[in-house]
Amino acid sequence: MANTVRVRVPGTSANCGAGFDALGLACTIYNDLKLTLTKEENLTIVIRGEGAENIPTDERNIVWRSVRYLLEKARADKDYRGARIEMDNRVPLSRGLGSSATAIVGGLKAANVLLGNRFKRHELLEFATDIEGHPDNVAPAIYGGFTVSTLSRHHVDTLSFLPKLKLRLVVAVPDFPLSTRAARQVLPEKVTVKDAVYNVSRASMLVASLLRGDVHRIRGAFGDALHQPYRAKLIPGMFDVFRAARKAGALGASLSGAGPCLIAYLLEKDEAHEAVGEAMQREFLAHEVNAQILQLGLDTKGAHVLHS
Amino acid sequence: MANTVRVRVPGTSANCGAGFDALGLACTIYNDLKLTLTKEENLTIVIRGEGAENIPTDERNIVWRSVRYLLEKARADKDYRGARIEMDNRVPLSRGLGSSATAIVGGLKAANVLLGNRFKRHELLEFATDIEGHPDNVAPAIYGGFTVSTLSRHHVDTLSFLPKLKLRLVVAVPDFPLSTRAARQVLPEKVTVKDAVYNVSRASMLVASLLRGDVHRIRGAFGDALHQPYRAKLIPGMFDVFRAARKAGALGASLSGAGPCLIAYLLEKDEAHEAVGEAMQREFLAHEVNAQILQLGLDTKGAHVLHS
Repeated sequence: MANTVRVRVPGTSANCGAGFDALGLACTIYNDLKLTLTKEENLTIVIRGEGAENIPTDERNIVWRSVRYLLEKARADKDYRGARIEMDNRVPLSRGLGSSATAIVGGLKAANVLLGNRFKRHELLEFATDIEGHPDNVAPAIYGGFTVSTLSRHHVDTLSFLPKLKLRLVVAVPDFPLSTRAARQVLPEKVTVKDAVYNVSRASMLVASLLRGDVHRIRGAFGDALHQPYRAKLIPGMFDVFRAARKAGALGASLSGAGPCLIAYLLEKDEAHEAVGEAMQREFLAHEVNAQILQLGLDTKGAHVLHS
Repeated sequence: MANTVRVRVPGTSANCGAGFDALGLACTIYNDLKLTLTKEENLTIVIRGEGAENIPTDERNIVWRSVRYLLEKARADKDYRGARIEMDNRVPLSRGLGSSATAIVGGLKAANVLLGNRFKRHELLEFATDIEGHPDNVAPAIYGGFTVSTLSRHHVDTLSFLPKLKLRLVVAVPDFPLSTRAARQVLPEKVTVKDAVYNVSRASMLVASLLRGDVHRIRGAFGDALHQPYRAKLIPGMFDVFRAARKAGALGASLSGAGPCLIAYLLEKDEAHEAVGEAMQREFLAHEVNAQILQLGLDTKGAHVLHS
């Protein structure tokens, strides 16, 4: 059995507006991982690209912890005590594009391949959710496309689908990080039933209009009352950037995960993506935020082995 | 222009579990309405079937009020001052199957046809929502199929779709009525974010799995944390009836609208509908509730003119 594999994992955007803690999507921006399992107890971790200076390269490394997690589940942790890990990272860190999910999913996926695909994709989802604490980003990182995830006490389930319309995603990446913990702390514990219904109806409308290709209704389906209004104070100019994106031709826009990235949704054929990116960048700048623009599409494969 | 028309309007089931105040469906049980507009100011209302003894036959009648509403919107209320209305009602009253929505939609639809379809379907939705106060039942009554509706301060929007799987609906109709007002009063004003997310994720999953024909995931998508737990005390044995329906072969079950009807969802090809109906009836009886069983399908047309 080969003891080296390369896997590619997409960055992800969770929530998609109304789908707070339920919806997500995978983007065409990737972190690549090369994993070699060794019998000897030694660990070498090489990181290139995003996070090369920040990510720990010792036993705390999240890729390594995920590899260990899978080896233990497979009772193969005695057979493989060490590893060589090479990461080529393109997904920005702590920006709301699921970089930690790529590390978890990459580690699990790579180790699983090296063990002859001992576990099914749904089991990898359970493992990844257990490690990350929630399925928001790991689900689209594993499955690709748009995802709907439900979580029960001991069970996570994900349905992945491709929308009937080809979408382009324009992401504005502010030059400051935001921890998910900080973004969680501003949320209230309780909300009005009215706000809950606001999101139930719009998340349902978003899923239905994506699957039906109903452009008119997608436009009305990005509203959110459960998290964005509270997190706005952490991201200067957020709602202004949303408005600027729409004005420049986007179907809608949302906070990406817990932020600070903002993501705008366009029809690929609209060709307004450059204008939308510029408008978002300009509006952020008006609020004294420097933002980089990523022009992305929807990833349709999820985590997969890189051949060649 | 003809001054008489006959229209047929389906009964409806709102909420569908997780889709509280957002989702609905139209059933193959119908109220028929024959409307004749007259220049003279007189009103004759004949009611046969459900509600023949209870529904007012004077100016308070909701069909007549809806006819008047549309005539006023069309500025035709001076041309037509009276009407003859004949109703053939099959939808049980005050049971959570949208009987008042059939009256509103029937009145609007019939009057609109007699005015040469002055208003579009979406306008009828706005009028009906204005009269009823919410789109939950009027939306599926107008459009048929499954519906997702969103409500803003001055705007209602509905997307209607047919699921990829052919469904059968088994409805248990308890022998006691329940006012929507009473069923609203038991709801809390605030809920936890966790409960809101519970419904956001499951309503999204229900819509996605219906549109994708994913039977496995439909089964997990009927859970609700926003209204059923609170309303259970108004409907003896509700959760036991849900369990009985599932055990007998249903994909899931939910409170129909504000109740007291309970509705179970089955694949048409499963052929367990008789067993599910008997199980629901028996379980209700164990809680000293007499219930009638309706074996229904999904209506695919919504309100329409009856020719012949």
